[in-house]
Amino acid sequence: MRHFLTLNDISKDEILDILQIAKDIKKEALNKEYKPYLKDQFLAMIFEKSSTRTRVSFEVGMQQLGGKALFLSNKDIQLGRGEPIKDTARVLGGMVDMIMARVYKQSDLEELAKFSNLPVINGLSDDFHPVQLMADLLTLDELGVDITSMKVAYVGDGNNMTNSWLMAASKLGFELRVATPKGYEAPKWVVDIALQNAKQSGAIIKIGNDPKEAINSADVVTTDTWVSMGQEDEKAKRVAEFNGFCVDKDMMNLAAPKAKFLHCLPAYRGYEVSEDIFELHADEIFAEAHNRLHAQKGVMVWCDRMRNE
Amino acid sequence: MRHFLTLNDISKDEILDILQIAKDIKKEALNKEYKPYLKDQFLAMIFEKSSTRTRVSFEVGMQQLGGKALFLSNKDIQLGRGEPIKDTARVLGGMVDMIMARVYKQSDLEELAKFSNLPVINGLSDDFHPVQLMADLLTLDELGVDITSMKVAYVGDGNNMTNSWLMAASKLGFELRVATPKGYEAPKWVVDIALQNAKQSGAIIKIGNDPKEAINSADVVTTDTWVSMGQEDEKAKRVAEFNGFCVDKDMMNLAAPKAKFLHCLPAYRGYEVSEDIFELHADEIFAEAHNRLHAQKGVMVWCDRMRNE
Amino acid sequence: MRHFLTLNDISKDEILDILQIAKDIKKEALNKEYKPYLKDQFLAMIFEKSSTRTRVSFEVGMQQLGGKALFLSNKDIQLGRGEPIKDTARVLGGMVDMIMARVYKQSDLEELAKFSNLPVINGLSDDFHPVQLMADLLTLDELGVDITSMKVAYVGDGNNMTNSWLMAASKLGFELRVATPKGYEAPKWVVDIALQNAKQSGAIIKIGNDPKEAINSADVVTTDTWVSMGQEDEKAKRVAEFNGFCVDKDMMNLAAPKAKFLHCLPAYRGYEVSEDIFELHADEIFAEAHNRLHAQKGVMVWCDRMRNE
Repeated sequence: MRHFLTLNDISKDEILDILQIAKDIKKEALNKEYKPYLKDQFLAMIFEKSSTRTRVSFEVGMQQLGGKALFLSNKDIQLGRGEPIKDTARVLGGMVDMIMARVYKQSDLEELAKFSNLPVINGLSDDFHPVQLMADLLTLDELGVDITSMKVAYVGDGNNMTNSWLMAASKLGFELRVATPKGYEAPKWVVDIALQNAKQSGAIIKIGNDPKEAINSADVVTTDTWVSMGQEDEKAKRVAEFNGFCVDKDMMNLAAPKAKFLHCLPAYRGYEVSEDIFELHADEIFAEAHNRLHAQKGVMVWCDRMRNE
Repeated sequence: MRHFLTLNDISKDEILDILQIAKDIKKEALNKEYKPYLKDQFLAMIFEKSSTRTRVSFEVGMQQLGGKALFLSNKDIQLGRGEPIKDTARVLGGMVDMIMARVYKQSDLEELAKFSNLPVINGLSDDFHPVQLMADLLTLDELGVDITSMKVAYVGDGNNMTNSWLMAASKLGFELRVATPKGYEAPKWVVDIALQNAKQSGAIIKIGNDPKEAINSADVVTTDTWVSMGQEDEKAKRVAEFNGFCVDKDMMNLAAPKAKFLHCLPAYRGYEVSEDIFELHADEIFAEAHNRLHAQKGVMVWCDRMRNE
Repeated sequence: MRHFLTLNDISKDEILDILQIAKDIKKEALNKEYKPYLKDQFLAMIFEKSSTRTRVSFEVGMQQLGGKALFLSNKDIQLGRGEPIKDTARVLGGMVDMIMARVYKQSDLEELAKFSNLPVINGLSDDFHPVQLMADLLTLDELGVDITSMKVAYVGDGNNMTNSWLMAASKLGFELRVATPKGYEAPKWVVDIALQNAKQSGAIIKIGNDPKEAINSADVVTTDTWVSMGQEDEKAKRVAEFNGFCVDKDMMNLAAPKAKFLHCLPAYRGYEVSEDIFELHADEIFAEAHNRLHAQKGVMVWCDRMRNE
């Protein structure tokens, strides 16, 4: 039994395997061929936070794989409130076949995984967003970027996307430059894991506070909102402190020629990215969004295949 | 690619085509024969306002056509909040096959249609309710009324139903008498479009404030709630000003013998309609409600057929 | 046409029939064999109260039977608000094939049943929880308990579970000892029905306030939360008055050897049950939860079979 809670639990070969499954199934889907890889299986989708992209991509994806998906919002299920997660997990364990959960606490995912006896997929937590990373990697691979040797610049807030890029780089061995304002760095425990992993993979991990240095000659530039859900009252302070971190034309000019720009959405123009850069790279960004669907099919099918391992 | 945002965008022949598709598929459904007209297609159902009838009819309808439906409430998706509609539209454009949206602003539908590259169906907006009109027309046709030459009286508040009847009459060429209290007329821009259309179709459009004059010898009488969602605090004022507009026995006696009475529900007895008239015409009214299911199948299949035109 | 609103409407033979259907279909499901017993049928699931277990079990169950399920929360449908239940029922009657409703008022279920012309299933009301009882009976039967001659002790709050056990015992003829604190007894009208039924079935119904007397040599012990939804502000008072009613090791030692312990969940450790007793009987309790899925399939298939009787 394997879960998909963070890329730190998945080896380089497994990440590449999942991407290959995703590519194969995507090719079939583009031919309107939907094979029942997960026939009759039920995916419980638990959302502590609402999310259009995660919701639609998992619900469509599971059904295109021949299964069914149940949408459980925080109105329907309250993890850890009313009853312990270990009870909810044991109830679901006898009714469905797989769980996807978008939660605040990574530890809640671990609790679900421990007690449900089902594969559990992280649909986004405060710490990690590994399915988004799989979509990003799939997109870059399709755009012809070598995802094991590329140079990626992450510019902006040190959040769950930063953490996920750190895991991805340190597993796959590519170069990642993270530039955040002072005080907004990725947590030390995550960076420590990345640096530890990098010793094996050969990844180059650079942590700093200078966005221009990070972007210089990068093959891929990416960012994320400066104000995540729940941080709305810090907005004015954050906007001031992120001054100079907007990915605009001048910034992108520092990157390698034909550098790609990714954004996991929603995008706030004029803040972490300028309108012109967003629209110039819109094809890449929306391919990335659409690849949530395809990458997650890869993740679900892989989890199913690993069920008895 | 065609959308279904208002009957003003649809020609008389197309309206009749859609009704014919609806009748054909309804006949099959009554025989428990469900052909996969929209096999493997996904309908995203976006609800800014909640609605039992719209929800159930689209969700059942799409699945009876061999597709799947995703219910996205305003807890799951907030059009234009968080991210611009053009981004939501482009994300959905790569994940689903068709969009139905129940929104406040008609312009939001137009924005979805413009950027999603998918057929978009108006499930109700502040301006128009064209799928309800299709159900009404289907019901009247089934009741033996000639929908191209009937006399319809709309009595009550000048709202999205009034607007939709104005579009239907002006396209199909039937006679429509609208009677509202003073100050509650249908908006001038809608009446102007209707009068313009009527020049071509030969429709007779009468706008006034006398319900008895409107109902006199009408083949069909219809009304709608006096207090739509969001107008609850005006209720007392509205009830006073709508005095004399309740469709009751005396009123219906002015209509043609065997005149039909339609109501799109929910119905407030003692206000826009009396309990006895409602129950006397309950078979017509609930056939009308059930025809939401059938008429909308016609709309969805038509939108799919027009995808490449 | 038969409904499933309370076990009081169902005969002993019918209860046993439904359990047999459930067992047969469960056997098939454990072999991953899903026969389309309710092919193309739609179940409307109306939830005035949210509930993970009821939601997941009906939604998965209906789909495993070849049908589809629509989840209608109190955000989507408000029984009796906005429009009379008789209108909602008549609308649904032409769009779906069966209704499951989790409501406050039992009379709302009766209204739905009266006007929808569809089988209506009680998913939980303030008065009764008959589908939970079917899951409990199925579980005990599978554990080798003779459900027509067992001794059951219900210890705790006199609520809808108590009422449901009273109906079950009085129909099937087993012995039921109910022990509640003074002032928390099951309502007299329910006890009166049970005593009346018992004359025919031979059931032994004992109503009292001494948990030890109730549990003495019982084959099955069961309880439920002391603080149901909506009673949160009475919590402190209730906890004090339920002192001595916690099912703990000392209490269970009074029961028959190998006595079973059931709990319909959620369970509040340290209140109605101790942590050690809960975990000691976790296999029984979660089998009971999972049997919601299987028992309800029996109920739905039975309702469908009785459609023309």
